[in-house]
Amino acid sequence: MAYQLHYWPDIQGRGEFVRLALEAAGAPYVDVARGSKDQGQGVAAMVRAMQEPAQQHPPFAPPFLIDGKVVIGQTAAILLYLGPRLGLVGKSEAKQLWTHQLQLTLADAVAEVHDTHHPLATHLHYEDQTAAAITRAKAFREQRIPKFFAWFESVLTRNPAGAGHLVGARLSYADLSLFQLVEGLGYAFPKASRRALRRAPLVARLHAGVAQHRRVAAYLASPRRIAFNEDGIFRRYPELDG
Amino acid sequence: MAYQLHYWPDIQGRGEFVRLALEAAGAPYVDVARGSKDQGQGVAAMVRAMQEPAQQHPPFAPPFLIDGKVVIGQTAAILLYLGPRLGLVGKSEAKQLWTHQLQLTLADAVAEVHDTHHPLATHLHYEDQTAAAITRAKAFREQRIPKFFAWFESVLTRNPAGAGHLVGARLSYADLSLFQLVEGLGYAFPKASRRALRRAPLVARLHAGVAQHRRVAAYLASPRRIAFNEDGIFRRYPELDG
Repeated sequence: MAYQLHYWPDIQGRGEFVRLALEAAGAPYVDVARGSKDQGQGVAAMVRAMQEPAQQHPPFAPPFLIDGKVVIGQTAAILLYLGPRLGLVGKSEAKQLWTHQLQLTLADAVAEVHDTHHPLATHLHYEDQTAAAITRAKAFREQRIPKFFAWFESVLTRNPAGAGHLVGARLSYADLSLFQLVEGLGYAFPKASRRALRRAPLVARLHAGVAQHRRVAAYLASPRRIAFNEDGIFRRYPELDG
Repeated sequence: MAYQLHYWPDIQGRGEFVRLALEAAGAPYVDVARGSKDQGQGVAAMVRAMQEPAQQHPPFAPPFLIDGKVVIGQTAAILLYLGPRLGLVGKSEAKQLWTHQLQLTLADAVAEVHDTHHPLATHLHYEDQTAAAITRAKAFREQRIPKFFAWFESVLTRNPAGAGHLVGARLSYADLSLFQLVEGLGYAFPKASRRALRRAPLVARLHAGVAQHRRVAAYLASPRRIAFNEDGIFRRYPELDG
């Protein structure tokens, strides 16, 4: 049975980390909120699933995954579940835990990206917190992007199976998520991320390599890939790129 | 062999979620950075372990746990690892995943608490971002605390084994972490959290219950429990409590 991915239909957002894993593995899935009402899909179907009173494991927020009777929220938890099922993580507990740890650090970075344009409150418009966003984005560009990239660079350097992947010698969901972080930062902070990538050549190489993965490349070229836009997590506001 | 917990010695911070699990289980552990230099402990020992060039799994930041050859960073990943070993999570994959999902949502809440006093940049002093903090804290008090509490309340309501625990009929690390979130919010936002708890009586009851757990109560009364303070994640700045 196809996996059901539930996420907002007009942005990549956090759902994209799950989508990339499903796409890279060639797994059958339905992108529920992007489907049509006639087929019982669409945003209303997602909201219904999220608010179902009989659901013992209610998701806090999208994205969430439904696999038969299993309902899982939190991007990193979804990938923890999907990883072994999609062949996107090693078999040992040590590899699974390390891959998950990388994913959690990627999730931290993504949350910080969100806060560069919404440092004061999610429910306020960007226009109402631009000055604060400029201060926060400067700190993010100067302190955080280099720190995150340097750490991933050191992880790649130390991988005994080679620097082509974060964990072991095969593609994992952490590789896909690092690709997406680099891709998103390249959209939102083109100048700052170009500078930072110059000091993290292995991260840059991994990003380029994932983009060429056969199924990932096909996905990125397809209409299933939503374009980056200013409603998502990665937003291009030139004033935030210094 | 005793677990090694590595975390900053003067704050509860994120290390406290791990400490509570180890204490509740009565597990032997060394709080490395709080130990003495004579015994090869202290902050310098923690920093050395974190920066060890031969380490294949370098932690991004404290807390991290060392268990023999295993090194794990990220609070939620540490608890994912410790949970089954300490008997603080159910045995099925479904229960472990659900408990972890709860933990990830708790981690999101904790990150938001941090940003109430540091909305602009972690490296700037609170005094240099107080105005922004006041705006962010208002949104956190009015929108986020009620939302998080309402969700945990609904999780407790829906637990088929009863509302005494988040998952199943026994104490899990998620219960301990929810206790700590409520405890911390009660310190940092006494007025706002009192109001929010009135609408989440099951959360309030779980918090009170965990505080009475024999080993937890002994720990909380011991010098091992660091007092809340204004260097940690939960800080009492009255202007942020409205």
